[in-house]
Amino acid sequence: MQKPLIFVTNDDGISSPGILFLVSIAKQFGEVAVIAPDKPQSGMGHAITINSTIRINKTNYHNIAIEYSCSGTPVDCVKMAVNKILPRKADLILSGVNHGSNSSINVIYSGTMSAAIEGALEKTPAIGFSLCDYSIDADFSQAKQHLEKIISETLNHKLPNGVCLNVNIPKLKNDELKGIKVCRQAIANWVEEFDERQDPYGRPYYWLTGKFVNFEPESADTDEWALANGYISVVPTQSDLTAHKSIDHLKKLLQ
Amino acid sequence: MQKPLIFVTNDDGISSPGILFLVSIAKQFGEVAVIAPDKPQSGMGHAITINSTIRINKTNYHNIAIEYSCSGTPVDCVKMAVNKILPRKADLILSGVNHGSNSSINVIYSGTMSAAIEGALEKTPAIGFSLCDYSIDADFSQAKQHLEKIISETLNHKLPNGVCLNVNIPKLKNDELKGIKVCRQAIANWVEEFDERQDPYGRPYYWLTGKFVNFEPESADTDEWALANGYISVVPTQSDLTAHKSIDHLKKLLQ
Repeated sequence: MQKPLIFVTNDDGISSPGILFLVSIAKQFGEVAVIAPDKPQSGMGHAITINSTIRINKTNYHNIAIEYSCSGTPVDCVKMAVNKILPRKADLILSGVNHGSNSSINVIYSGTMSAAIEGALEKTPAIGFSLCDYSIDADFSQAKQHLEKIISETLNHKLPNGVCLNVNIPKLKNDELKGIKVCRQAIANWVEEFDERQDPYGRPYYWLTGKFVNFEPESADTDEWALANGYISVVPTQSDLTAHKSIDHLKKLLQ
Repeated sequence: MQKPLIFVTNDDGISSPGILFLVSIAKQFGEVAVIAPDKPQSGMGHAITINSTIRINKTNYHNIAIEYSCSGTPVDCVKMAVNKILPRKADLILSGVNHGSNSSINVIYSGTMSAAIEGALEKTPAIGFSLCDYSIDADFSQAKQHLEKIISETLNHKLPNGVCLNVNIPKLKNDELKGIKVCRQAIANWVEEFDERQDPYGRPYYWLTGKFVNFEPESADTDEWALANGYISVVPTQSDLTAHKSIDHLKKLLQ
């Protein structure tokens, strides 16, 4: 039997420690191919490149046959892989491991998760992994056995049509991790503060900064609760943004 | 009583015909402020600028007091408006009118709609408008009375918490428009084809192109059906991506 084909991408760039770790795990489960951004693409959400061109270049970070850096976004990487590069349909798409959390509302800003959602749109089981640790020295190995379990179960059982997984890992040692919790996305938001500075010519410019606010810290069925209580959170994630419960109300107002 | 404050942005750029038209309508309903991208930002999805700085510059396209172009994405424009520029909380956020459709799956790639979703996250009623006509000479005025109705009802009745509206307008004359239909996002996708070319130095580069596929053209409760049948589609839209129905199934597999 042919080994599963596993496509790996991320948003931190093709040589980041997180994707090196994820590729090393993926190799245990099948043949691995990588197309990932040639530079950091954090916060790119579901952006695609339509106003400029895309380039790809062969690389040798992962010691595999199909391995390219891409000038585009994480979603571009998935589209390029699926439609141009992969020799056959992938059995699994993995994205990450991201350096930093993609829980709750972060999912819509996240290039890592947008790549996984794009995978689900392509009808391929897909998982985005993120470690809640922004440090360049972050230790991705602590949750290794849990990641292997999630990958193995997804390969064996697939995922519901159009659904991918948003996996976030708390910054804890292996023996402190309490296990895996399947949850929903917490209702949360960022309160932005723009850091205003002056360039050497006296003109203002801004850095986007902000403070994360969880509006429901007590809700034990959310990803934020799971992470705060020592669990790896797994949120099944999809791309229908319709607010179905509001349809009837709006029909009365507008039709 | 103070006039409503209406914030307007888009993804085609601050001087595009679509936003000029939308600002002219918004002025009928209140005081208008504009912060919009200084260049086209189509396909930027929910991208935010975190790896570089943001600049804003005063402009004079709309003849209003608060009017800035912004170097960032549509979502950056909303964050900048809400947290830095507007004198008080906006009563309404409008995005568009986009040159081209943002129906069904296009919502997740759309800078126009991401600005509206960001508005809903900021707890402000928000509407994204798109005209299904990519032409630079597109006639935005045909649906004027319907747009005025949608804006008026939203100002008078607000929207459910966290919900914004995705309004798409078919390319039809005023007397051909059948009215407004509140619907859900159709299940659809793009099948990409990368247009491969060679630069003058013999190196390949790619343009992302694709063919739109509606997987349920017969479903009369979808936005694609409404548009194909002469209606303006209104989809209530929100930012919870959780696949709630898959949670129990995944608990059995992973916990």
